[in-house]
Amino acid sequence: MIHKDHPRYESLRLRAKIVDAYKNGILADSGMIAHGRGEAFDYLLGEQSTENAKLAVEAAAAALLLAEHPIISVNGNTAALVPDKIVELSNELDIPIEINLFYRTSDRVLKIEKLLRDHGAKTVLGTDHEKKALIKGLEGPRSSSSAEGIYKADVVLVPLEDGDRAEALVKNGKLLITIDLNPLSRTAKTSSITIVDNIVRAIPNLIDTVINLSQTDKVTLHQIISNFDNKENIQSSLKKISKKYTGEDL
Amino acid sequence: MIHKDHPRYESLRLRAKIVDAYKNGILADSGMIAHGRGEAFDYLLGEQSTENAKLAVEAAAAALLLAEHPIISVNGNTAALVPDKIVELSNELDIPIEINLFYRTSDRVLKIEKLLRDHGAKTVLGTDHEKKALIKGLEGPRSSSSAEGIYKADVVLVPLEDGDRAEALVKNGKLLITIDLNPLSRTAKTSSITIVDNIVRAIPNLIDTVINLSQTDKVTLHQIISNFDNKENIQSSLKKISKKYTGEDL
Repeated sequence: MIHKDHPRYESLRLRAKIVDAYKNGILADSGMIAHGRGEAFDYLLGEQSTENAKLAVEAAAAALLLAEHPIISVNGNTAALVPDKIVELSNELDIPIEINLFYRTSDRVLKIEKLLRDHGAKTVLGTDHEKKALIKGLEGPRSSSSAEGIYKADVVLVPLEDGDRAEALVKNGKLLITIDLNPLSRTAKTSSITIVDNIVRAIPNLIDTVINLSQTDKVTLHQIISNFDNKENIQSSLKKISKKYTGEDL
Repeated sequence: MIHKDHPRYESLRLRAKIVDAYKNGILADSGMIAHGRGEAFDYLLGEQSTENAKLAVEAAAAALLLAEHPIISVNGNTAALVPDKIVELSNELDIPIEINLFYRTSDRVLKIEKLLRDHGAKTVLGTDHEKKALIKGLEGPRSSSSAEGIYKADVVLVPLEDGDRAEALVKNGKLLITIDLNPLSRTAKTSSITIVDNIVRAIPNLIDTVINLSQTDKVTLHQIISNFDNKENIQSSLKKISKKYTGEDL
């Protein structure tokens, strides 16, 4: 039990979720370690959503609302931390979720599918027994995607994606929205819209923004996207983190 | 198997060691996550020993050579990553090692003791059946230390220590040498000498420096320590990391 008055309560609560998910077979070994990397970068961000993150969320919501075939890609860490919020976003937008694992095993896919369905998910793709199509520019099992899901999608929301796959998805013409705490990562730099934030804050913010913009006309949504400059937004995040390093007295 | 030509070979090799140690019961759950945090901070350091780290290592070597009762404190992650190098340093200086775990269990203590002894350790303290003494300012199991080890020591080398314990050790009059990849951590700020580096590089550097300084007279060793300014050294590390954030083109 973690006490609510512990100064690191929220961080420890998330860590406990990750450890449970690992023990339940939802996470690979590397998922535990990846969570630690996220803890470090979130600490440097001050563990709060920045103005830059909010701007990126707004552009992401507009892109998802305008998309013809949008999809939400989910990996083990996302399923472990925010299964309820991913399903809520999926249902709010009425778009499918695709399970997309770096270290894919049938067992983990089944467990994540069950977790999402238990939270009320309607369409879960990326399971074993469906038609697959290969994403150009990738090799091996990582090149496979659901023919009706990521392969067909024009806009892909993919939290915590690796660099190779992010690059390939962009090269294949997708508008890629990522959520990544490391603004220097290849995924952050490659994506069309990069939300530099923790998924536990970014997904709820995205749900709120999708609801707020749901009645907005297409011209305005297009304007939101064209006013958003991803490179500039990332640079601004970098400056904020850099201040954490040099602005504090020791 | 990780191929040697993989761009992240060294990082993946360390990760594999951590996963093995976890599966062998040497690491707690939090040790896997802590390794991930370390990966992130090491990435920001450029995964190499800086000039500041080398200066801190020199001061640390001088302090260990001058100490009356020096000791090396070892936790799970240190035992997992550099058991051989810890033993080499201990034997070179002819000083004991104390097992000091945040989430202490008898099973993990026994496994780490065996690991260190298998690598040739002579004196391993901090095991279950020895006389303990309480460190003032700490509560619960974390306040316990070996009466002949950390409790009695004047100089403690403690890689990867938590902030509460680091503060208490300093308040109890110890000269505290830490190795910590996060220059903003409470441990980094509290310690007498902070080596901002990965233990897999810092411990070998420390061994080399101890050997180099082993014939140096006491006056010179005292000068090395008094010329070293820990606060200034940490500030300089912070500036280096900050450059990583703002100096790179996206």
